[in-house]
Amino acid sequence: MSLTSEATNTVADSTLMTGEQYEASLRKLKFKVYLNGERVEHPVDHPIIRPSMNSVKMTYSLAQDPQYRELMTARSHLTGKTVNRFCHLHQSTGDLIDKVKMQRLLGQKTAACFQRCVGMDAINAVDSTTFEMDAKLGTHYHQRFERFLLRMQEEDWTVDGAMTDPKGDRSLSPGRQADPDLYVHIVERRADGIVVRGAKAHQTGALNSHWILVMPTLAMTAEDADYAVAFVAPADADGISYIYGRQSCDTRKLEGGSIDVGNPRFGGHEALMVFDDLFIPWENVLMAGEHEFSGTLVERFAGYHRQSYGGCKVGVGDVLIGAAALAADCNGAAKASHVKDKLIEMIHLNETLYACAIGCSAEGYRTASGTYLINLLLANVCKQNVTRFPYEIARLAEDIAGGLMVTMPSEKDLANPETGKLVRKYLQGVATVPTETRMRILRLIENLTLGTAAVGYRTESMHGAGSPQAQRIMIARQGNLQAKKELAKNIAGICDQK
Amino acid sequence: MSLTSEATNTVADSTLMTGEQYEASLRKLKFKVYLNGERVEHPVDHPIIRPSMNSVKMTYSLAQDPQYRELMTARSHLTGKTVNRFCHLHQSTGDLIDKVKMQRLLGQKTAACFQRCVGMDAINAVDSTTFEMDAKLGTHYHQRFERFLLRMQEEDWTVDGAMTDPKGDRSLSPGRQADPDLYVHIVERRADGIVVRGAKAHQTGALNSHWILVMPTLAMTAEDADYAVAFVAPADADGISYIYGRQSCDTRKLEGGSIDVGNPRFGGHEALMVFDDLFIPWENVLMAGEHEFSGTLVERFAGYHRQSYGGCKVGVGDVLIGAAALAADCNGAAKASHVKDKLIEMIHLNETLYACAIGCSAEGYRTASGTYLINLLLANVCKQNVTRFPYEIARLAEDIAGGLMVTMPSEKDLANPETGKLVRKYLQGVATVPTETRMRILRLIENLTLGTAAVGYRTESMHGAGSPQAQRIMIARQGNLQAKKELAKNIAGICDQK
Amino acid sequence: MSLTSEATNTVADSTLMTGEQYEASLRKLKFKVYLNGERVEHPVDHPIIRPSMNSVKMTYSLAQDPQYRELMTARSHLTGKTVNRFCHLHQSTGDLIDKVKMQRLLGQKTAACFQRCVGMDAINAVDSTTFEMDAKLGTHYHQRFERFLLRMQEEDWTVDGAMTDPKGDRSLSPGRQADPDLYVHIVERRADGIVVRGAKAHQTGALNSHWILVMPTLAMTAEDADYAVAFVAPADADGISYIYGRQSCDTRKLEGGSIDVGNPRFGGHEALMVFDDLFIPWENVLMAGEHEFSGTLVERFAGYHRQSYGGCKVGVGDVLIGAAALAADCNGAAKASHVKDKLIEMIHLNETLYACAIGCSAEGYRTASGTYLINLLLANVCKQNVTRFPYEIARLAEDIAGGLMVTMPSEKDLANPETGKLVRKYLQGVATVPTETRMRILRLIENLTLGTAAVGYRTESMHGAGSPQAQRIMIARQGNLQAKKELAKNIAGICDQK
Amino acid sequence: MSLTSEATNTVADSTLMTGEQYEASLRKLKFKVYLNGERVEHPVDHPIIRPSMNSVKMTYSLAQDPQYRELMTARSHLTGKTVNRFCHLHQSTGDLIDKVKMQRLLGQKTAACFQRCVGMDAINAVDSTTFEMDAKLGTHYHQRFERFLLRMQEEDWTVDGAMTDPKGDRSLSPGRQADPDLYVHIVERRADGIVVRGAKAHQTGALNSHWILVMPTLAMTAEDADYAVAFVAPADADGISYIYGRQSCDTRKLEGGSIDVGNPRFGGHEALMVFDDLFIPWENVLMAGEHEFSGTLVERFAGYHRQSYGGCKVGVGDVLIGAAALAADCNGAAKASHVKDKLIEMIHLNETLYACAIGCSAEGYRTASGTYLINLLLANVCKQNVTRFPYEIARLAEDIAGGLMVTMPSEKDLANPETGKLVRKYLQGVATVPTETRMRILRLIENLTLGTAAVGYRTESMHGAGSPQAQRIMIARQGNLQAKKELAKNIAGICDQK
Repeated sequence: MSLTSEATNTVADSTLMTGEQYEASLRKLKFKVYLNGERVEHPVDHPIIRPSMNSVKMTYSLAQDPQYRELMTARSHLTGKTVNRFCHLHQSTGDLIDKVKMQRLLGQKTAACFQRCVGMDAINAVDSTTFEMDAKLGTHYHQRFERFLLRMQEEDWTVDGAMTDPKGDRSLSPGRQADPDLYVHIVERRADGIVVRGAKAHQTGALNSHWILVMPTLAMTAEDADYAVAFVAPADADGISYIYGRQSCDTRKLEGGSIDVGNPRFGGHEALMVFDDLFIPWENVLMAGEHEFSGTLVERFAGYHRQSYGGCKVGVGDVLIGAAALAADCNGAAKASHVKDKLIEMIHLNETLYACAIGCSAEGYRTASGTYLINLLLANVCKQNVTRFPYEIARLAEDIAGGLMVTMPSEKDLANPETGKLVRKYLQGVATVPTETRMRILRLIENLTLGTAAVGYRTESMHGAGSPQAQRIMIARQGNLQAKKELAKNIAGICDQK
Repeated sequence: MSLTSEATNTVADSTLMTGEQYEASLRKLKFKVYLNGERVEHPVDHPIIRPSMNSVKMTYSLAQDPQYRELMTARSHLTGKTVNRFCHLHQSTGDLIDKVKMQRLLGQKTAACFQRCVGMDAINAVDSTTFEMDAKLGTHYHQRFERFLLRMQEEDWTVDGAMTDPKGDRSLSPGRQADPDLYVHIVERRADGIVVRGAKAHQTGALNSHWILVMPTLAMTAEDADYAVAFVAPADADGISYIYGRQSCDTRKLEGGSIDVGNPRFGGHEALMVFDDLFIPWENVLMAGEHEFSGTLVERFAGYHRQSYGGCKVGVGDVLIGAAALAADCNGAAKASHVKDKLIEMIHLNETLYACAIGCSAEGYRTASGTYLINLLLANVCKQNVTRFPYEIARLAEDIAGGLMVTMPSEKDLANPETGKLVRKYLQGVATVPTETRMRILRLIENLTLGTAAVGYRTESMHGAGSPQAQRIMIARQGNLQAKKELAKNIAGICDQK
Repeated sequence: MSLTSEATNTVADSTLMTGEQYEASLRKLKFKVYLNGERVEHPVDHPIIRPSMNSVKMTYSLAQDPQYRELMTARSHLTGKTVNRFCHLHQSTGDLIDKVKMQRLLGQKTAACFQRCVGMDAINAVDSTTFEMDAKLGTHYHQRFERFLLRMQEEDWTVDGAMTDPKGDRSLSPGRQADPDLYVHIVERRADGIVVRGAKAHQTGALNSHWILVMPTLAMTAEDADYAVAFVAPADADGISYIYGRQSCDTRKLEGGSIDVGNPRFGGHEALMVFDDLFIPWENVLMAGEHEFSGTLVERFAGYHRQSYGGCKVGVGDVLIGAAALAADCNGAAKASHVKDKLIEMIHLNETLYACAIGCSAEGYRTASGTYLINLLLANVCKQNVTRFPYEIARLAEDIAGGLMVTMPSEKDLANPETGKLVRKYLQGVATVPTETRMRILRLIENLTLGTAAVGYRTESMHGAGSPQAQRIMIARQGNLQAKKELAKNIAGICDQK
Repeated sequence: MSLTSEATNTVADSTLMTGEQYEASLRKLKFKVYLNGERVEHPVDHPIIRPSMNSVKMTYSLAQDPQYRELMTARSHLTGKTVNRFCHLHQSTGDLIDKVKMQRLLGQKTAACFQRCVGMDAINAVDSTTFEMDAKLGTHYHQRFERFLLRMQEEDWTVDGAMTDPKGDRSLSPGRQADPDLYVHIVERRADGIVVRGAKAHQTGALNSHWILVMPTLAMTAEDADYAVAFVAPADADGISYIYGRQSCDTRKLEGGSIDVGNPRFGGHEALMVFDDLFIPWENVLMAGEHEFSGTLVERFAGYHRQSYGGCKVGVGDVLIGAAALAADCNGAAKASHVKDKLIEMIHLNETLYACAIGCSAEGYRTASGTYLINLLLANVCKQNVTRFPYEIARLAEDIAGGLMVTMPSEKDLANPETGKLVRKYLQGVATVPTETRMRILRLIENLTLGTAAVGYRTESMHGAGSPQAQRIMIARQGNLQAKKELAKNIAGICDQK
């Protein structure tokens, strides 16, 4: 439960922005963005990008909503003020659990990736890692980080956590790539800061963020120390370019309708973020060569983010399950026992993901800096299931939806009087439900299983926060097989020490 | 093996059209087609429709190719001439097996639905059903059918088998729907023929067909005898309208490129086909009220078509597996043991589907008319697996492909000199493979798992030839549980007769 | 975390029995037991029964062990004394989580069903249900229950919760059975108590218990009010007979060896418990006709018990995973990538179960009586996974173990000098591991996958705490499909109220 | 279909033994057998061994039965006489298919491993391999083999194909083992023959065989040429010892009842077969150092045997499905939709295995010697599915059976008048089915999922004919990934030759 009591949640104590303020703040930023081969001047207003901004905006709006305020906010451990939970460092297992619930809520409200989690997971990972790094190496990153965090909380920023490098040839380490820039690295160390070059791929919500927090992509060796680099920077800094990623069915948003897009208001986005010799002053540098801590940072960020997927994807799953149930209502199949059973299976799988996220949260523990970390084994188990179950939930949704989902005429055929008459007549399901309603539901399922939202619900479930094999490596490492062998020897009556 | 010997395969003995002749023949038809709210005058040339025509055309071209001719053709049991196998009635289990191999081949060559199977499966089902119907009821449908078949073979027509009615409220029978037209039915019986009204949904390849062969959608009761109707008609008959179905990413084909579409040449299509009081002369009527045979016709057509999916989808699966392997080659992950294992699993699942299709063919048997029918139990088992394994194959392909598949910049970003430089630099995988090659492979995987071809590879695998539950009902009916109980009683030493 | 501080855990404040005291207390009971067609006078010493007593005994021994005491005990909310956690009512979500951890620990230490959970789950369910029943109906069951609970805690009893009736014909309600006794029911109501007749099947640990707590098996209707009956009774009361259930490989325990049994010390048992007009004085009656609360009692007991399976089976799974890893060590296959991957999968599945149990505990809530209940949806989800994953874990263990597990000579062949030489020579794996060690490991895996412990690890995982379909019904009821539909409508832009 | 016409199937033309003759012939053999630490003089009559003899006997009895004769026999390609199909070399794909059907039939009739397949698969593999070996190397093994085959057919022998060596440390090759005897090898080459030492593990049906046919266990290198050895020998030769393998619940067969054993008549067995410097005259040697052909022999034998599992296990599966259906009949649950659906799933999985076996047979081809080989890719796919689906079928059977299967009193409790009354009363299901019938069915399911037959149905499905990973290696090798990559490149429009 949130620790925020009503009494303290006064205006003076709060740093919360409204959704409108957030949107206005974004408009002021000068991103260098390319989409489909052209420069985009006002990303917020571009019809392909706008729905993703709406999703982030929801993280601000719900924090203002009395119904959700308690879940959406937390009391800052730095200032005692009420801050958006996305800007908060988890102070208890209760905070970890509330994080998951907040993510499920937002998944339910947007049916999309709402993009603000990456930054939340990044600040929590950076906090404990820089604390421990300073303690061991005598560096001074943690206080810099706290200064940044304070501003982030005060300004209620959305921060984009940036981890994934393009990686080039997977069989070669960063420094051995044909092109050394395929991993972000320090190309110059100056008295006043560092210069970095490289790119981050798949940057979720980059163009909806005020700042970025860049982290290394894997545990680095001494040989690759220049690749062990972390820093913060304004998202619209000179020296950063963005190339917007295409999604399945992205251009339906240019067609001007509200049905065929499936989810007319919300979406997510990813972009390729390029650093062209970007200068970072020391006050914004959070790691610069301390390769022995790059693994810890990656492991913790990934751990938090793998927990996250047990929240957000479950919320999206709730919408998909609801849509599938409505599809069955629309065509009169809702009472068939196999339909009911498939809906149960969808709920079962979805709640298994949620239980894993809650489980890794409840088993969380306090790190040296005071910030709570999830149970890493269970967080990896959670994400591993996320690489499987949403695919099965989607398959079952397609089963219930029926083939019409992918053979249905367009909404322009519905609008055209001549064809509209035929569409209305022949796509009518049960007599009480308008054909348009049925079309909207089927388009929503299409959106989630094949369209723009499938990018978030399927592929991101697979690869976001690390591909399946990354979790398996962590499960192997955290699974304590040796202790299990001792248990078995004890039971079997084997006394040797091997 | 095909029975066609080289000696007999001379020009005079063959009815085969070339691909070009096929295309020309289609241009002459006057379809009434709507796409995206507008009338389309020349479907063949519309960039959204054209790739689907190319797929059907491949069924003509390969029949001319010496490498594939033997598999692609058969000797007509009516005339002894060499006909395209798609126009052939199966005369042996060898023919049934060759059908599957032909379908796998075409799936490999198009990575799409090539659409011509529906008609082949329809003629085979209609042949034995009308034969048995005439024998039992004294009707004369079979000779009409044979006259049609002769023309179909002589003209090398593509025929669209049309079965699926819109069905409205699934909990109500055809005649109890609020709108009686939600199932195709006879609205008038005249001396010279019948008049039909209604629609057929999800019509695969309708606009690439010369004729249509319409069948009832389920076993009808006496009450619904007017819905037990089958007939042939020219695909461009007055009284037939088509509304083209939208597919995921369909409009990428309008963008003028060749990369982002994934599969630049081939595709499939579905359309809503509407009969507005269409007149059918008696010579083209194949069933008109004989409700007791509607179930047989549906069961046999569905059986053949469920076999088909163990051919065509396996061919498409071959392409997807190859693409996934190339994706791993592109980023240097091909030697990782988990990647190799996932490719093995994909092959295993794909070949299981193929084995089921071959199995139901080898266990086929001769019907009274001489045409061979597949083993219905195994054909349903085959299709039931098709409703599952392509989804898992697709999931594994997405696993190997990586997130870039859905976050990649557009090909216009590649073409733009400024962004192209960045895209080329940062999406480079192993140094020896051009970035464009990598992008093409990833777009192909996207096409098959999320894009236009996912309609065929996923949703059609689910619902085409009947939704999963339809197969389960057939498995229950064909599984002979009673005999299995007797086996168990015998083993357990239970002697009672219960 | 347990609330027990060291300071308070003094002898005077504790009610804990030692394992030896427990065993001695059992010896005094006069059970009427039949095993394999014969009356057994001293169940504790019967070689088939003894290992199950050892498992329960472990619940006493570990509570005395400083390493585990904190987890194994709790502070009684009635007396403030330290009691065995199996006698405790959960006072917080922390207690619910600790319960799961205790169960996992005992599963690890016994690799068997330790049988004492049923009573713990029963008292927790009875507590809140009788409290609410009294509040609504003005009955006085709760104070009776508290008096019983006090004695149970003071005496550190093992109590057998008894729920499952034989049920006869599943398509008929209790009162409509051909034999009314197929469900336990009240056959007489007297001034001093009630008389009950019937049986409870599959009674886990019945012969290792001091008392039994009998509950109805399902939600009863008014028609079946006499079947809505709950009570406590001494386990060795006159009027109760037990027929011991056979397990796979049970008689290996009579062979006198220690290898072929797989787990030489621990096991579980089930018995058919028959009430032959058993008299229950009113002070021991906990429900007698209040049919409207029978459903609540069943639902809560089942909920707690479905949570339990995410603890105990996970502990047993730990042993099985360890044994599989040792089997690979024994034959030199441990470094094969597929073996490592299978062990990872086993851990992944096992930890998913654990995460579900922790999740339903962390999401628990306080009932009116003060006792904490788990989240019912997640507890059912937990158990549903338990009906699947142990089977897959077992399958993978058998994969790693190799065929030798089921074709291995007996330990008498090892003991016989002539054959022993051959067995030692030819079953040698890696040179450093004695053949006997390898045999012990394989026999342990056999025990868990096919032998006596498979009853607990497989079949009980399936049916214990309710068969799979029972969980699906609860998931349907708790899944709140209506709210999910509203979410989907909101996203799809559907405004109607339907 | 079998080619045997009735007319030719006269006594003079047939070499078939009756079951009684088979049993009598076995009695004459002087096996050196140990079971449970003791020498067994008359294996045929030992109650633990007898049921396995009954299974093999069934392969003789059914060949005499007019109903099954056509399937059970074939016409020898050597003599034209009617021989048992188990002694036959497959002369067509029809023969390959009939083999599968015969195996399914025998699985149905015995619900156990009938053991005679190994020899059939061995002779077929040895035939083509020795033919090709002789052709390439100028050796003369094939004519020796044909002489042996002729005797085998004339005498209607059961031959035990022996392949699996103990293997010791899996990470070391045969010659590098600490004990060189852990793989069978030639220890002396003499003028009149060879002397071999070592053992074969898991020998199915060894004690029910007249002769053994020994093959190498894997592809050998030149270094291990002495391990490339194949030969035939009388099963009771001096120099061969057998240690009988224990099975789950084996000693129930010593209890004298007919219920608790589950399957009172049939079973299977495995034994460890030890060669103590066994002399083999040259006329019985089939490979002696030609290591380059050891891989071919293993691959072909394994291929045939992997096909076999798609026959025999399917037959056993039929019995298990029937038993599960009867269990539901017994307790009145047969009409529950989830029970019906689970039975459908069981049938679906079982028939998928069958379809794979038929598929790999129909795709078989003629080898140089004239003997037909199955399609190796599909045979491996078949077996890979066999390592999965029987486990799921068993899980579903346990689901339907209910917990009573593992908690049921013994048949002695049923026989005891006092307890028998209670057992009969309280284990009654639907009123019309005797309790004993219900018990028999549940014990049969227990037998197949946990008991003696589970060894065959589960573990042997996993490891028999090669463990799962062995099939995956073959699938990788046979899957032609390179051709699939070319298909994908062609579709994606990639022209480079890489």
